[in-house]
Amino acid sequence: MNAAIRSVTRAAINHELEVMGIMHGYQGMIDGDIRKLTSRDVSGIIQRGGTILKTARCEEFKTREGRKKAYDQLEKAGIDAVIVIGGDGSFTGASLMSKEYDIPFVGIPGTIDNDLYGTEYTIGYDTALNTIVTAVDKIRDTASSLNRVFFVEVMGKEAGFVAMQSGIACGAKGILIPEVKGQLDKLRQILTKRVKEKRSTIILVAEGEDEGRAIDIAAKFQKEFTGIDIRTTILGHIQRGGSPSAVDRFNASRLGVGAVEALLDDQKSIMVGLMQNEIVHVPLNKTVKLHKDIDRDLMNIADILI
Amino acid sequence: MNAAIRSVTRAAINHELEVMGIMHGYQGMIDGDIRKLTSRDVSGIIQRGGTILKTARCEEFKTREGRKKAYDQLEKAGIDAVIVIGGDGSFTGASLMSKEYDIPFVGIPGTIDNDLYGTEYTIGYDTALNTIVTAVDKIRDTASSLNRVFFVEVMGKEAGFVAMQSGIACGAKGILIPEVKGQLDKLRQILTKRVKEKRSTIILVAEGEDEGRAIDIAAKFQKEFTGIDIRTTILGHIQRGGSPSAVDRFNASRLGVGAVEALLDDQKSIMVGLMQNEIVHVPLNKTVKLHKDIDRDLMNIADILI
Amino acid sequence: MNAAIRSVTRAAINHELEVMGIMHGYQGMIDGDIRKLTSRDVSGIIQRGGTILKTARCEEFKTREGRKKAYDQLEKAGIDAVIVIGGDGSFTGASLMSKEYDIPFVGIPGTIDNDLYGTEYTIGYDTALNTIVTAVDKIRDTASSLNRVFFVEVMGKEAGFVAMQSGIACGAKGILIPEVKGQLDKLRQILTKRVKEKRSTIILVAEGEDEGRAIDIAAKFQKEFTGIDIRTTILGHIQRGGSPSAVDRFNASRLGVGAVEALLDDQKSIMVGLMQNEIVHVPLNKTVKLHKDIDRDLMNIADILI
Amino acid sequence: MNAAIRSVTRAAINHELEVMGIMHGYQGMIDGDIRKLTSRDVSGIIQRGGTILKTARCEEFKTREGRKKAYDQLEKAGIDAVIVIGGDGSFTGASLMSKEYDIPFVGIPGTIDNDLYGTEYTIGYDTALNTIVTAVDKIRDTASSLNRVFFVEVMGKEAGFVAMQSGIACGAKGILIPEVKGQLDKLRQILTKRVKEKRSTIILVAEGEDEGRAIDIAAKFQKEFTGIDIRTTILGHIQRGGSPSAVDRFNASRLGVGAVEALLDDQKSIMVGLMQNEIVHVPLNKTVKLHKDIDRDLMNIADILI
Repeated sequence: MNAAIRSVTRAAINHELEVMGIMHGYQGMIDGDIRKLTSRDVSGIIQRGGTILKTARCEEFKTREGRKKAYDQLEKAGIDAVIVIGGDGSFTGASLMSKEYDIPFVGIPGTIDNDLYGTEYTIGYDTALNTIVTAVDKIRDTASSLNRVFFVEVMGKEAGFVAMQSGIACGAKGILIPEVKGQLDKLRQILTKRVKEKRSTIILVAEGEDEGRAIDIAAKFQKEFTGIDIRTTILGHIQRGGSPSAVDRFNASRLGVGAVEALLDDQKSIMVGLMQNEIVHVPLNKTVKLHKDIDRDLMNIADILI
Repeated sequence: MNAAIRSVTRAAINHELEVMGIMHGYQGMIDGDIRKLTSRDVSGIIQRGGTILKTARCEEFKTREGRKKAYDQLEKAGIDAVIVIGGDGSFTGASLMSKEYDIPFVGIPGTIDNDLYGTEYTIGYDTALNTIVTAVDKIRDTASSLNRVFFVEVMGKEAGFVAMQSGIACGAKGILIPEVKGQLDKLRQILTKRVKEKRSTIILVAEGEDEGRAIDIAAKFQKEFTGIDIRTTILGHIQRGGSPSAVDRFNASRLGVGAVEALLDDQKSIMVGLMQNEIVHVPLNKTVKLHKDIDRDLMNIADILI
Repeated sequence: MNAAIRSVTRAAINHELEVMGIMHGYQGMIDGDIRKLTSRDVSGIIQRGGTILKTARCEEFKTREGRKKAYDQLEKAGIDAVIVIGGDGSFTGASLMSKEYDIPFVGIPGTIDNDLYGTEYTIGYDTALNTIVTAVDKIRDTASSLNRVFFVEVMGKEAGFVAMQSGIACGAKGILIPEVKGQLDKLRQILTKRVKEKRSTIILVAEGEDEGRAIDIAAKFQKEFTGIDIRTTILGHIQRGGSPSAVDRFNASRLGVGAVEALLDDQKSIMVGLMQNEIVHVPLNKTVKLHKDIDRDLMNIADILI
Repeated sequence: MNAAIRSVTRAAINHELEVMGIMHGYQGMIDGDIRKLTSRDVSGIIQRGGTILKTARCEEFKTREGRKKAYDQLEKAGIDAVIVIGGDGSFTGASLMSKEYDIPFVGIPGTIDNDLYGTEYTIGYDTALNTIVTAVDKIRDTASSLNRVFFVEVMGKEAGFVAMQSGIACGAKGILIPEVKGQLDKLRQILTKRVKEKRSTIILVAEGEDEGRAIDIAAKFQKEFTGIDIRTTILGHIQRGGSPSAVDRFNASRLGVGAVEALLDDQKSIMVGLMQNEIVHVPLNKTVKLHKDIDRDLMNIADILI
């Protein structure tokens, strides 16, 4: 996210706008925790994970009173427009507030799960994929030395984008995602074959998989396949941080510039996204209401490459 | 490239085709250094840099006699179609041979420089960008500790794609590429300002920059700016290898499947590329004759983010 | 481990010995799954995680009958001496067998936990530390952005070497290891202070910690500290694989040469270890019977650096 | 170095001392560029390369007048003792100044080359080794795909520690260091054999090698071995930065605590080093006057493992 913060700040200053950083997300907006950002403040941050503005969950912003407080703080600080980096939750709040008050909000998609409608890319997604791929490479060393089966659980509460793309990139033998039903039978066949051949196997499971969490699915298969050692690894929070990948730094920089230009073009309540590698504008309301479909061709590719 | 070799092999076997691996590129084709590839042969290679088929430069293939020998070997081995992973040189050869002999060639774009017409993506490009970004992060530590200026030379013999995209991703203060002329004056202004502020500075230079090699440009500026320490690093061959990034593994897998499908769809003398994130077919002849333009908007973004 | 396999193979060949690789550990010894190893077989493996010889658990080797079978296979294959890379379990077996049969066993310490008596270093330990440190860096990005507390569980079933050294290297605020009792009160004080200061906190927990698994300790503290978000990450199997670090490749190479030299010096039933950076010989029996103490000064250093 | 700065600061505060950071090395000491350091100032820096105190070369400090100015600034700032992180040059200055003025200096060894007498370890050395090993892994992918010979130049102006240890860790076929003469003949034999076998080859060359720079030696061999492609890569400044390895963070933390304890124990003009993995005190004067020998056994190991 720091690459986007840097980009927004410098693009705005380049257009002779003043930039303020709101700390801790909407909580800081309500609390008036707002600081001026100079070009120098965002120097040397493009390579750092996390966010210099920090973030927080904020229940109060979901209430009309909370947003009133937030608006008052924005007025007090002399803020004319807001750029929000986030996902579903952040954009819902932004969408509501831009209806209630005459202040434009522009969203930049920042979520590991890459499940936002209206954009093919979200900040952090590529770094997460690389972290997963590197972690699975390490796990494969053990799997392969011991002819083991590993279920690896990756991010993706409601969508399988992470699991699908990283699964293909890892050469996983099975990919379980919420969008595709009835995968267990296919997986059973694969495991039967692999166990017979005494070969190690990596299965990627999205957090939000309907059949249950990776650890439960693994336990179920362990009961069926007693002759083999089945293990589970939950990659968890290591997927969220780390020095960003080249693509993430590059795209976050583009989106930051795009967000500032959208404001200068008098846009309101939109997200700047990337579709077919070009910057697009999508109503915030649509990004949270509509559902982004996974490309089912990818599932075919995954099946072919097993 | 191994991800593409794996993908081609498995996709072909999936369609009940037999797959042969030609070792050492066109040299191996001429010498008949050809081996059967099974699904198992390409197991556990997706994470490895380099290519299990090895490669070589081959002058002989540029001659009609060389290609005749190659064709005889293909016939002898019972090969009906060829998939070539490579760039300009490889595709020129493939294009010539597919005109001379009735054997379809399908190209998969594999070049670090990403300068092939007809595709936005080439295999190895994303890994190279990540290697550069990581290397420059290290160099920046020294630059910043010592308030030094660093010229970093990156790949890109005739095109600035690598330098431009990695430059933005690195937060470089200047990017010198062959496509944009007269950059030295702008750079002079930037350096003057940075030297006055006593701040470290990273400049990315494409190998093919018209003003000369990074080391010569640096020497020139060192003479002008005597009060500051200017250094050069040539990243060189570390940009070519290494375990591939998630994007490279994923896209190489897609392109491999796409190449096999192109053959099944009776395509001939084409490259499978990625445009706007979709698989496209482009005549091999066009990929080598036409010139791929750099997106000049990116230069504006780079300038804004300084 | 591959660095050690390479080193043993080349050192032995250098002394004009023949080398056989026993696949799948003691299981392969019992099954006679034994292959000749040439210098070329171990080429290009020093950078790979895992082991080209694969490994397995083997209950049968714990029985006298199993070891009889194993000895018969060794005889059949013309093997005069055995070098075993492993830990506690492997060395117990080696120690027993070298008493029962007139065949020298030399051990090379290879265990992530670094808890073997008689050596300061075990193969894989340094790579695991680097993997942990990198993973915690990523987790810290999230912890810091959200002011969260993270409990991170690392390897170390019966010993806290991994947790202690990686904890200091990560700048952890607390380190829980089986060797030190009553740490929870100290941790409570630290958390109270950090929560008040609204600062993120990383706690490292060894798997074998007496107070329970990381997830249980975290749950307990979450009940006490309701105002803060406490999370757990179990690093698990990513600690075991991956391309080895420089120290691991270097020391594994030294130990491999040392093991071959020990055999040439007519040693029997010993482990070659590293003490004070020098190769030492320790009876296998001692390595499994005696307990390696943790350096308590390190705990003081950890406390000072909080 | 940041790990050592953090460690010194926290260890001193733990002993109720006040800590000041001198910016830009001796230059900042002369200029009085001195700031208070709190525990919080050194929070979140253990994972960062470079140094938050920055550094600089300083000719003026080599003069008696320069050191007088520096002493006046120390007095003015109320500084009673100085901890210097650095190498040969820094320690020469510290040694001189502690003779001229009644102010204790304690050195912490921080140099990539690891060539300081009195310590087996210097800060940054292990990170540099890992960077080299990773870079050579990438180069090997190209070397191996193309059967090329690569000369890789690594740090080590006057000593071959870096080249020797990283050469063994990389599985290099040849290692050229200033301490060992007449290596070119041995290298010629190796290359003759490798070229005949058509195999790729990596040669590591220390910067300070007597036979010349890597690029010149490579050019010389290219003339002899015309049938093969010989390339050179100078790793350069990427060896100096980057997020520190686990060993570097751990040892720097120990040395920082050790330096503060040395001051509390009334030590003066010494370096705290690591010998046989224990903290030792060595007169600063000795560290710069005496020569640290390379372990010649390592050369034998390198030869055996080719």
